[in-house]
Amino acid sequence: MTTVYRLDQIKEIIKKIDISKQLEEGFVLYTNKKVIVPPVGEMIFEDPPGDTHIKYGFIEKDDYFVVKIASGFYENHKIGLPSSTGVMLLFSQKSGELISILIDEGYLTDIRTAIAGGIVAKYLSPKKISFIGVLGTGVQARLQVEYLKGVTDCKNIVVYGRTEKKLKEYKKEMESKGYIVEITSDTSVVTSKCNMIITATPSSKALINFNQLLPGTHITAMGSDTPQKQELNTDILEKADIVVTDSKEQSLSRGEIYRAIKDGKMSKEKIVELGEVILNPSIGRTSDTQLTVADLTGVAVQDIQITKAIYKELQKIIEKNN
Amino acid sequence: MTTVYRLDQIKEIIKKIDISKQLEEGFVLYTNKKVIVPPVGEMIFEDPPGDTHIKYGFIEKDDYFVVKIASGFYENHKIGLPSSTGVMLLFSQKSGELISILIDEGYLTDIRTAIAGGIVAKYLSPKKISFIGVLGTGVQARLQVEYLKGVTDCKNIVVYGRTEKKLKEYKKEMESKGYIVEITSDTSVVTSKCNMIITATPSSKALINFNQLLPGTHITAMGSDTPQKQELNTDILEKADIVVTDSKEQSLSRGEIYRAIKDGKMSKEKIVELGEVILNPSIGRTSDTQLTVADLTGVAVQDIQITKAIYKELQKIIEKNN
Repeated sequence: MTTVYRLDQIKEIIKKIDISKQLEEGFVLYTNKKVIVPPVGEMIFEDPPGDTHIKYGFIEKDDYFVVKIASGFYENHKIGLPSSTGVMLLFSQKSGELISILIDEGYLTDIRTAIAGGIVAKYLSPKKISFIGVLGTGVQARLQVEYLKGVTDCKNIVVYGRTEKKLKEYKKEMESKGYIVEITSDTSVVTSKCNMIITATPSSKALINFNQLLPGTHITAMGSDTPQKQELNTDILEKADIVVTDSKEQSLSRGEIYRAIKDGKMSKEKIVELGEVILNPSIGRTSDTQLTVADLTGVAVQDIQITKAIYKELQKIIEKNN
Repeated sequence: MTTVYRLDQIKEIIKKIDISKQLEEGFVLYTNKKVIVPPVGEMIFEDPPGDTHIKYGFIEKDDYFVVKIASGFYENHKIGLPSSTGVMLLFSQKSGELISILIDEGYLTDIRTAIAGGIVAKYLSPKKISFIGVLGTGVQARLQVEYLKGVTDCKNIVVYGRTEKKLKEYKKEMESKGYIVEITSDTSVVTSKCNMIITATPSSKALINFNQLLPGTHITAMGSDTPQKQELNTDILEKADIVVTDSKEQSLSRGEIYRAIKDGKMSKEKIVELGEVILNPSIGRTSDTQLTVADLTGVAVQDIQITKAIYKELQKIIEKNN
C-alpha cells in the first residue's frame, strides 16, 4: 500500500541522516548519462500569478522513478502561505505502482540544493576556510552554510544583504545555531575576509567581481538559475582556474556560465561537470591559491536520489516499529 | 492540510453520486476552449516493459488544477498486480497548495471513461434500445453498460468476445448485476439484435461494418485510442448520419475518425464535438432511423472534473463527521 509521509516526519528524518553519498552517486550517474530526464512540464497561472513545474525522471535499471510537482505563487504571503510548495512521488520502475508520497511542501528541494553546495565545497573549497561569506539572507543563504558542516569547522559568517531587517533576522537565527555573524550591506566586506563564498540571491546583475576577491577563494553560485539572473561579474569566471557546474547542458542556457560564455569570457570547453570531479577529484582544487567557481542550477537526479533515500529511511522506522 | 483518500473510500463515494453533470460541463468547457491542457509527459521503461503518462491541466479561472500520473505495465499479471494504475492530485490554482491526493489506482479513469459513454448515449442512442451490444469483455465492456443506467432500462446484453472463458466470466458477473447476457463469438449476432453497440476492444482491425447494422443504431467506439487501433470499418463512419468525438483535435490523429478520414471516407467537417451536442442537443439524434457514431479517446478535462467532484463529496463527509 502506498505510504504517505508529511513534512514533520520528513524533517525529523533529515536531521538524522547524511545523504550526501547518495547525491554524489546521483551526480556521477548524471555525468555518465544514466539518468533519463524528460522535458519539464509547466503550467502558468495569471490571477494570482503562479507557476507549477512537473519534473520527473529515473536512473536506468533502477527500481524507482520519481515525479516532483513544485509550485511558486509569489503573492502567497498575502494569504499567509509560503510562496513555494511541492510534493515528491516515488513509483516502482518494475510495476508502475505508487510506492510512497512525500508531502514535503518543497522542503526536500531546499535540502538537496544545500547538500549539493556541501558536496561542491568538499571538492573545491580551500583547506582552511577563514570566514564563510554569504550573499543573500533567504532559505539557501542559511541552509548552504549549515550543509558545510562536514567540510569545515569554521563558524564565522560575513553576510551581505540589501535590507537591515533581513540581515538582523539572519544574524539572530544563525547565531542561535552557534555561528558568529557579521552583517554588511557592502559586498567588499565579504570578499575581503572570506575565501569561501556562497551567493544565494535572485539578483539580475553582478554583485561581485574578480578584483575584490582573496586569492584561493571558492565561490558557490546557486542563486542564478535563469538566463536573466546573474550574481558574479563574468571576469570571475574568466579568471577562475576551475569552473564546475552540476549540468553542462543546463549551464549553456542559464546561470553564471551562460552569461560568461555569452560575454565571450570563457569557452564551454572550460566547463567541468560535478560528476567528473567526484569521479576524479584531481580535476578539482589542487592548491590553496586556485580560484574556483561552482555554478549550480539543480538537476532532477537530486530529486530522485533524495526521495529514494528519505523513503528508505522512513521504511526502516516502520519496519522497526512492526 | 493535504487530505489523502484511498481506493476503497473513492469506490464508496462513486456508488453514491452522479457526476455526469460535472463531466457534461467539462466537455462544454473543453469545446469552448476554456481548458488548458499542456503536452502529456511520458516515460517509457524497457525491462519490464511499461509506460507512465503525466496528464495535467486546468479550467481557466477555476479554483483547482489537476495532475494525473497513470502507468501501464503489461507484464504485471506475472507478479499478481493489475496492469494499470494511477493517482490523481488536486491543487489550488490560487496558491499552488496540494489540496488532496486521490490514490485511485486508475479507477477514476475507468469511471470517467464510462460516464462519457453514458453521456454520449443520452444524446445519441435511439429512444427504444432493443438489446445492448458489446464488443469486448474487459473493464470498459462492463462499466460502459452499467453507466447506461440513466439512459435506458434495457437489461439485455449481447456480448462478443474471442475467448469463451472471458465471455463466460463476463456473463457471470453481469448476470449477478441483473443483466440477461447472451454470449457470442460472431459479431453479426450482436449487430442483428442490438441498436445500441459499445465497442471496447484493443482491436487493430475492423470488427463490424455498415451492412450488418440495424437501421437507427448508435455505436459508441471507445476501444481505439491510437493511430493503430480500429474497431469499425470506415464505411460505418462514411454512412453515419452523425459522427461525434470528445475531442476534434485528438480524433484527427487517432481512433476511428482518424482512420476514416485517412481512408477518404469522411471529411473533418463532418466531425461534431460532444460539447457542441451537449450545448445544442438538436445537432444530436433527431430520429430513430439515424445511424450515429461516437468515437471517444478521452480528454484531460474528464480527469479534472471527476477529481474535483470526488474531492468535494469526500470533504462533505469529513465536515459532517466533525
